[in-house]
Amino acid sequence: MKPANLYLITDISGYTPQIGRLVSMMNYVRWTTLDEVKDLNVKQLDYLHDADSNSIGALLMHIAAVEASYQESTLGLDGFRGRDSEELRIALDLGERSRRKIKGHGVDHYLRILQAVRSKTLEEFASRDDTWLDKQTSFWDRRRANNYFKWFHVFEDELNHRGQIRWLRKRALEQG
Amino acid sequence: MKPANLYLITDISGYTPQIGRLVSMMNYVRWTTLDEVKDLNVKQLDYLHDADSNSIGALLMHIAAVEASYQESTLGLDGFRGRDSEELRIALDLGERSRRKIKGHGVDHYLRILQAVRSKTLEEFASRDDTWLDKQTSFWDRRRANNYFKWFHVFEDELNHRGQIRWLRKRALEQG
Repeated sequence: MKPANLYLITDISGYTPQIGRLVSMMNYVRWTTLDEVKDLNVKQLDYLHDADSNSIGALLMHIAAVEASYQESTLGLDGFRGRDSEELRIALDLGERSRRKIKGHGVDHYLRILQAVRSKTLEEFASRDDTWLDKQTSFWDRRRANNYFKWFHVFEDELNHRGQIRWLRKRALEQG
Repeated sequence: MKPANLYLITDISGYTPQIGRLVSMMNYVRWTTLDEVKDLNVKQLDYLHDADSNSIGALLMHIAAVEASYQESTLGLDGFRGRDSEELRIALDLGERSRRKIKGHGVDHYLRILQAVRSKTLEEFASRDDTWLDKQTSFWDRRRANNYFKWFHVFEDELNHRGQIRWLRKRALEQG
């Protein structure tokens, strides 16, 4: 069932105004990601289109891993602690190693990890405010980035891979 | 050259606070889209990976077309007027017709149209405010959506296709 307010970028109770808008966007993005994968079986999640392709499963784990890495760099959490830490660390880099190691899981495995990572983010966001969101550090190319940009990047990277997941899903389903 | 403030989601002079943040995100997204395509030749822009694939050129035209369509529905503009209108209308729907009709162009053709559409959006945004951004109408599935969501959708759809463009770019370059 679709969550209420899925199509509103607005205040969310429990968050400051700008964080509420950021969370609105993250919620929509995640909903659409999950909608693409929730009915896939192990073979489809492991489908490799060609020698350079990542599987949908590896892309899902990568999405969780990117979020965990920004938990470390912006929220002071150890995003890679606990039982999923090895898989998350591997999936931070897509490519050969992820192709070899991230496979054989049903969709529930990925959904559980995505949810576990996300719930920590939201818990932390609830104790931050818009001043924190505006806070800048030196970032890529030694340019300034604020926390809003860094968390925008977390969801824009997810959207980038959701586009690939949609493309791969169509081809994976054709394989049966 | 990278624009200043590429990694800041923040106020932008000439726009109200929330519109400034929206434009910050749209600017970053567009910069990354153009970065993937600016060096491609006609053959690479027309590359079709398989019978169901869209070319990078068609995806670029689709990105402009989606923006034009939200200019109509939210800004009261006729986004499909002028010399590019036929191509934009075709590219609103990806698939067989876009594959057949959108091809043979150098990258400058797509960049010009993307820029022409975008400049109209930004001009209109400058005369709107955050109250407008919050304005709701009935939308998909008869749910409420505000203008912030609709324009978030414009750039999240672009990101989705940027992910596909990145994937296709790699394969198109391998074809020479």
